Amino acid sequence: MTGIKTTGEKKMMLFSGRAHPELAKEVAAELGVGLVPTTARDFANGEIYVRYQESVRGADCFLIQSHTTPINKWIMEQLIMIDAMKRASARSISVVIPFYGYARQDKKHRGREPISARLMADLLKTAGADRILSVDLHADQVQGYFDGPVDHLFALPLLTQYIGGRVDRDKLTVVSPDAGRVRVADRWCDRLGAPLAIVHKRRDPDVANQVSVHEVVGDVRDRVCVLVDDMIDTGGTICAAADALFANGAADVIVTATHGILSEPAPDRLKNSKVSEFVFTNSLPTPGEMSLDKVTVVSLAPTIARAIREVFEDGSVTSLFEGDA
Amino acid sequence: MTGIKTTGEKKMMLFSGRAHPELAKEVAAELGVGLVPTTARDFANGEIYVRYQESVRGADCFLIQSHTTPINKWIMEQLIMIDAMKRASARSISVVIPFYGYARQDKKHRGREPISARLMADLLKTAGADRILSVDLHADQVQGYFDGPVDHLFALPLLTQYIGGRVDRDKLTVVSPDAGRVRVADRWCDRLGAPLAIVHKRRDPDVANQVSVHEVVGDVRDRVCVLVDDMIDTGGTICAAADALFANGAADVIVTATHGILSEPAPDRLKNSKVSEFVFTNSLPTPGEMSLDKVTVVSLAPTIARAIREVFEDGSVTSLFEGDA
Amino acid sequence: MTGIKTTGEKKMMLFSGRAHPELAKEVAAELGVGLVPTTARDFANGEIYVRYQESVRGADCFLIQSHTTPINKWIMEQLIMIDAMKRASARSISVVIPFYGYARQDKKHRGREPISARLMADLLKTAGADRILSVDLHADQVQGYFDGPVDHLFALPLLTQYIGGRVDRDKLTVVSPDAGRVRVADRWCDRLGAPLAIVHKRRDPDVANQVSVHEVVGDVRDRVCVLVDDMIDTGGTICAAADALFANGAADVIVTATHGILSEPAPDRLKNSKVSEFVFTNSLPTPGEMSLDKVTVVSLAPTIARAIREVFEDGSVTSLFEGDA
Amino acid sequence: MTGIKTTGEKKMMLFSGRAHPELAKEVAAELGVGLVPTTARDFANGEIYVRYQESVRGADCFLIQSHTTPINKWIMEQLIMIDAMKRASARSISVVIPFYGYARQDKKHRGREPISARLMADLLKTAGADRILSVDLHADQVQGYFDGPVDHLFALPLLTQYIGGRVDRDKLTVVSPDAGRVRVADRWCDRLGAPLAIVHKRRDPDVANQVSVHEVVGDVRDRVCVLVDDMIDTGGTICAAADALFANGAADVIVTATHGILSEPAPDRLKNSKVSEFVFTNSLPTPGEMSLDKVTVVSLAPTIARAIREVFEDGSVTSLFEGDA
Amino acid sequence: MTGIKTTGEKKMMLFSGRAHPELAKEVAAELGVGLVPTTARDFANGEIYVRYQESVRGADCFLIQSHTTPINKWIMEQLIMIDAMKRASARSISVVIPFYGYARQDKKHRGREPISARLMADLLKTAGADRILSVDLHADQVQGYFDGPVDHLFALPLLTQYIGGRVDRDKLTVVSPDAGRVRVADRWCDRLGAPLAIVHKRRDPDVANQVSVHEVVGDVRDRVCVLVDDMIDTGGTICAAADALFANGAADVIVTATHGILSEPAPDRLKNSKVSEFVFTNSLPTPGEMSLDKVTVVSLAPTIARAIREVFEDGSVTSLFEGDA
Amino acid sequence: MTGIKTTGEKKMMLFSGRAHPELAKEVAAELGVGLVPTTARDFANGEIYVRYQESVRGADCFLIQSHTTPINKWIMEQLIMIDAMKRASARSISVVIPFYGYARQDKKHRGREPISARLMADLLKTAGADRILSVDLHADQVQGYFDGPVDHLFALPLLTQYIGGRVDRDKLTVVSPDAGRVRVADRWCDRLGAPLAIVHKRRDPDVANQVSVHEVVGDVRDRVCVLVDDMIDTGGTICAAADALFANGAADVIVTATHGILSEPAPDRLKNSKVSEFVFTNSLPTPGEMSLDKVTVVSLAPTIARAIREVFEDGSVTSLFEGDA
Repeated sequence: MTGIKTTGEKKMMLFSGRAHPELAKEVAAELGVGLVPTTARDFANGEIYVRYQESVRGADCFLIQSHTTPINKWIMEQLIMIDAMKRASARSISVVIPFYGYARQDKKHRGREPISARLMADLLKTAGADRILSVDLHADQVQGYFDGPVDHLFALPLLTQYIGGRVDRDKLTVVSPDAGRVRVADRWCDRLGAPLAIVHKRRDPDVANQVSVHEVVGDVRDRVCVLVDDMIDTGGTICAAADALFANGAADVIVTATHGILSEPAPDRLKNSKVSEFVFTNSLPTPGEMSLDKVTVVSLAPTIARAIREVFEDGSVTSLFEGDA
Repeated sequence: MTGIKTTGEKKMMLFSGRAHPELAKEVAAELGVGLVPTTARDFANGEIYVRYQESVRGADCFLIQSHTTPINKWIMEQLIMIDAMKRASARSISVVIPFYGYARQDKKHRGREPISARLMADLLKTAGADRILSVDLHADQVQGYFDGPVDHLFALPLLTQYIGGRVDRDKLTVVSPDAGRVRVADRWCDRLGAPLAIVHKRRDPDVANQVSVHEVVGDVRDRVCVLVDDMIDTGGTICAAADALFANGAADVIVTATHGILSEPAPDRLKNSKVSEFVFTNSLPTPGEMSLDKVTVVSLAPTIARAIREVFEDGSVTSLFEGDA
Repeated sequence: MTGIKTTGEKKMMLFSGRAHPELAKEVAAELGVGLVPTTARDFANGEIYVRYQESVRGADCFLIQSHTTPINKWIMEQLIMIDAMKRASARSISVVIPFYGYARQDKKHRGREPISARLMADLLKTAGADRILSVDLHADQVQGYFDGPVDHLFALPLLTQYIGGRVDRDKLTVVSPDAGRVRVADRWCDRLGAPLAIVHKRRDPDVANQVSVHEVVGDVRDRVCVLVDDMIDTGGTICAAADALFANGAADVIVTATHGILSEPAPDRLKNSKVSEFVFTNSLPTPGEMSLDKVTVVSLAPTIARAIREVFEDGSVTSLFEGDA
Repeated sequence: MTGIKTTGEKKMMLFSGRAHPELAKEVAAELGVGLVPTTARDFANGEIYVRYQESVRGADCFLIQSHTTPINKWIMEQLIMIDAMKRASARSISVVIPFYGYARQDKKHRGREPISARLMADLLKTAGADRILSVDLHADQVQGYFDGPVDHLFALPLLTQYIGGRVDRDKLTVVSPDAGRVRVADRWCDRLGAPLAIVHKRRDPDVANQVSVHEVVGDVRDRVCVLVDDMIDTGGTICAAADALFANGAADVIVTATHGILSEPAPDRLKNSKVSEFVFTNSLPTPGEMSLDKVTVVSLAPTIARAIREVFEDGSVTSLFEGDA
Repeated sequence: MTGIKTTGEKKMMLFSGRAHPELAKEVAAELGVGLVPTTARDFANGEIYVRYQESVRGADCFLIQSHTTPINKWIMEQLIMIDAMKRASARSISVVIPFYGYARQDKKHRGREPISARLMADLLKTAGADRILSVDLHADQVQGYFDGPVDHLFALPLLTQYIGGRVDRDKLTVVSPDAGRVRVADRWCDRLGAPLAIVHKRRDPDVANQVSVHEVVGDVRDRVCVLVDDMIDTGGTICAAADALFANGAADVIVTATHGILSEPAPDRLKNSKVSEFVFTNSLPTPGEMSLDKVTVVSLAPTIARAIREVFEDGSVTSLFEGDA
Repeated sequence: MTGIKTTGEKKMMLFSGRAHPELAKEVAAELGVGLVPTTARDFANGEIYVRYQESVRGADCFLIQSHTTPINKWIMEQLIMIDAMKRASARSISVVIPFYGYARQDKKHRGREPISARLMADLLKTAGADRILSVDLHADQVQGYFDGPVDHLFALPLLTQYIGGRVDRDKLTVVSPDAGRVRVADRWCDRLGAPLAIVHKRRDPDVANQVSVHEVVGDVRDRVCVLVDDMIDTGGTICAAADALFANGAADVIVTATHGILSEPAPDRLKNSKVSEFVFTNSLPTPGEMSLDKVTVVSLAPTIARAIREVFEDGSVTSLFEGDA
């Protein structure tokens, strides 16, 4: 053969955008690597500038960015960082998105709406992403929006382990805060062997027009209710659901969700609620005003780090969840 | 200007595959057009041959094919028919898929599975489809799998109107046959102003291992229960749910679903069930052995025909559903 | 460099669809590997479900599926299996298609027909295939339909070696069964140093209208005729050609083709024919009723196994055929 | 509706590259339109510059360019002209390629060759072509290389009509100049009701090694032989075939081909040949030195013009050939 | 023909994002149409929601959005609005971007940078944009980044007309503020028949290291200098250039640029500068604190409106600039 | 794991088209490898035939072709060579284009022109190129035309080193030959610490109409002027600029450019010019008649070889230019 032949090598490099550097640092520590030194700053008119301070040629790049506020800026930064990797000859680009923005706009609820969750997947692909790692997508179907592999991680084992260690399982009822999230609650029931209830919002048949009531379907009297959801944004739905549970005789209510978005006025709502504990992961940075005693944050870093390692070493991410992925 | 200038024209042509010609004929009658004469046959080894007997150049083509048994054959026929349209210079190709096959494989339930619902959308796109019209997709998110417009039609108005005209609304409870379909039941509640219940399958806490029980969440005693789903395949889930309802004191149970797939052993199960009525649309052909007294079929032809007309005339499909689409 | 560096590895994994597992097992045995354990089954309504029981992440995957009856089902299964590999992070996906379905529809014979052979190539690409390995494509041009490498294998060396070892070369004439397959016969002539003849179907000039006669062009009297084709489907053309040869004084007729599709009524036709021997490869499973004394099956497994090995090890597939590929 | 609504118009504009303007002018005259005034010139280093002198916005553009010598230049000019149309907002771009260059490289004859005919199709698509019109492609399969509609025109009716009017059909035998072109000869046989013969090149069994002889398969003694091919390049094959026919007792030989490429040394070969007449179309410009008495050129302009008109008016190109297309 | 045939219609609809509604309203007024009523708002976590209140099916949509602060948000809004149009079956989508964000990152100035201007073009394409209309792109080459037609509008006629009407042309010198923008100044020289000068930043040869001086190349003493650029962001470069001109004896300095980005601390810099007048277009909203006497804003609305009209009516945008476009 | 696992290898292979084999050989010598033996020839009608004589499967292929005269032929050859690599299963294809043809058509100077520089990038991508290496692109933005990594090499270090070693820096002025190339001159100023001047072509204000004069902006009297450009084609602009410099009192003029295209009548113009030295690289072959004493050619082979090595070994090309790339 004419030419040069050498033994192949592969290298992994870890990057972080500016959205949630704390999580990226935790993941790096778990992996025992440093984050690649990166220049990222805003020009005066808000345009983002990015440059990597080391060659990324031939590397399997993992870029961590969580879609927190200001969300459009961080999504754009991620796209720009991917573009820079692609043009600098990265061998592969895996984007780690602990919280995937716009996941709720995953269908046209009414005509002439966008399907922004699909758009995000297409934008990531166009920029140059080869693979997505994400945690507890709002709908599982979103993994089908990306034209390539999606490693879908679950916080369920972490969260059920935490709750299971704190509550007497015989007293526990899992509650879905609305009709659309029963599937999530169902997985909790399976994992904890607990009964199910639903807070169902419907029009009050006794009052005209659009007034709705929170009807509790299932038995919650004297039970310790674990209200489960994938995300809590302004906290309106979840706090109203908790109120309905207490009104129906619940002994206690614990709220848990993978993603604590906690936009205004969530901090006040949570503070004023009768809920005894809120449990989130660190998929998103926790707003400073949320450092209440009753808020617990469980770290995803070990889970994400193991997934990255399996991807790099061609192991099985599925095995992380004992066959559930 | 050098050249020739003429007034633009547009023409609509309606086609049918061989899967469910009865529905296509009904739609054609509603529209007042004929189906384009088409040669379609199988070669000895099963390869499908297709040819249109009229020029389709410049036409807005609407191709109706429902994904019934043998499902892989009819999907392939549809792809081949699209390819023939594309190569014959159709101006646009809209595929009408009353029942969209593989819609249930819309996510990886476990690792190393396909996402076949996305694959189908990509295959249709590759063959040359510009637009999809479908009815009651298993998950709304499937509309995001196709890279182009999807007109998503609903049987809800037809079915709720039928049920609403037959049952005393005060006695009616809407029931979801499992935790994953509560969203559909919720829409029925909204439409009919009825309370919600759920049949929830869970591990029996009193028995070891995987044995599961059908727990009814919500109150069904002495109620007329309408069990709602998007599709009924072998009928196992729905008949077990009906049994659970009767066991919990339901006065009567009516079952309704948009898509009556009714694979074996559904005919026997339905026949032997205590359910008083089964209501489907004609999105799929009804198996001959299903012509029971207690099976009612509501026609989608007027809905599909109106949607085709709106698409061709650039009207609003959304308006068909009063803002729900 | 920030990050982790390791020596690269590569791994090969072999998969089989359900169409023709015997051939896949033979290939696996030749390669000295096992087939990857795979769950594949049909749902009640015919939808195919697939799942791999081992991680395929980072592997060079080779998926064997021959397009036999029911052909649309097996093509769809192959597409779904590719999709599952892609989404499970396979490093590359090579599809081995011993018999490539729809290869005969490789052009529009008349207007408004599909070009299904191109469509199949595009569907494979869309699903995620990176490379195709196939044997004796109906037209060589089909390799240009796929947007990527196609390794085109030939049964010619196997088949000419077999025939050359059984027939006195001085008595042998190679015959093409119709005008469109003369190119194949020509390669046989080259290989065996034999003269050429053609069975040419044409309108009988002495009879009105469309009646056609089988005219033998070239000299076949007292010759041992080897009728060669790439595939035999219902056997009509080839048996009529054999009759014409006997009618023109042929001493004996042997029929050989790479692909024995043998759809009905081929089994009867072959049994009743005066042809002394039929020689096929095992690119397709042989129907049970074909196990006649005069049918010989030559195995492609060693050829396919060597090609897979060369692909995996970056060797030369061309060299398998001494410069003919 | 908010906005402006007007009656749609469509316009057709006809363009010519610099390869074969005579044909384009003939087509324009047939259509009764002028060619769009176009600036096209070479820069000093050979780069081609193109600009249209009229707005093409919204027009259905038809661009005629035949791939004659210097062939790479004219292909590149065509690609550049398409790009300029696309960027100037043409509504659709149909490229008319009377002779499609590189059509003979339609497969890998040996390993590590390109498939240039597919590459050309992809380059045209990438530049922006929506449709191809071409005449007598070397292999029908080439129409499948383009990802869009291909209107495949045939010179067969023109050429058989011409030959049929000049030769006594009872004396006529159609001859294929080699094994690979028998399919074309077969179509002539069908059309003229004539018998078939083949000139088959094969190794001389009496002489060692690679020496080949031209064996005539079929009966040509005292016959008027019409040697038919799709193209004649240097004339070597066809003149050797004619010699073989005369050597086997042919009364006369006429040669006909759609595409008269006639590269050196074709002019001398044709002049010195015993062939009584050569018949070509004007798909390519005829070299000046070819204006011999025995060369006849039949014009494709009416055929191409009718096809363009049908495409623009959404008529049927198939009907041009009475169901043969 | 089987089917329905009607006269074609086309309709134009005009949309505005929330970035710069004043300009959109002016354009709408020029065109005599209303803006399509659109719901656009931010969710609590910053995700953007969009819905059109009228059917857009079949319409040629023109969407105006200028990339002003917060720039990433408005770009994302534009992408989402395009997606909603595409999925609602718009016939074509033209995006009007008076100021194209990230245009300055149009190359890798150093290794491992993105080419964000290309990325933006690809994102727009992916979302569904068919055409871009923009004004004075930072580099003309950016029009080549989009895979489709780009109508590039120029403010030059507007601005030179304004300046030409206010300054004695005999006294006027056109000045480029740095070496990279001389091409723009050159066009001004051509248009106004004025001499050229350049402010050239270079390392001071008398001082060690990186200190740079503003060297004026060309003669500016006692001249009225018109400093021209495509955009003014923080004003640093332009004010330093003006200072250098005054230091070199300029009689007066006028500054003009198409795009007045005017990020902090531009307002103070402009206020404190000795420059007598600043002239911008309204491609971007002018910050409130910039309503100084010496700031003049020239409207682009008539230019944009005419371009939209020509695009919709298939006229010539080139003709807007008398052959310069 | 089922399957076979081996250590990965990678191999580099170097190829040359027929445009400029001398440079390819120099690069090969620098790298210490041979060029892959390749068959490349023209068929009689000008179609190019290519075949590699060694397997390229799995190799990282580097293909050197400079776009010299006949430029369209060599570009087409390069596309065909890429196609052959892709179909022969190359692992990656990097195209080395020392001079990138059509780079000057990088925008629409007027309406209805192509953007040929983008078209070339798209054609390369379509054929199968993964990466481009080029030298001194006419506009930096052209790197953004290719959808993948572009390694942009610079001749600046080579050329400034050469000039810096021959001219007294205190006497040196860098001159741009027109307004559009000042950016290049600016980089020279930076590198050599020299002042800048510009030759500016403008309409003569004292003469009517379009007559233009070469105005020298900046001080050149008694200076040694280095006229810098990226390419010299016919030499008209550069020789007129040199004349203008001498007319304005320049002591001497040296001309340097990366790319010496030197189309007719450049050889005569350069010979007759008063310029004392012309300095080019060997990005293009130097025409035989240019071997004048005053022409100096600096070799790019070491620069290209180092870049190829870095690409193959995943090193940093940026570092070749000390942070300038």
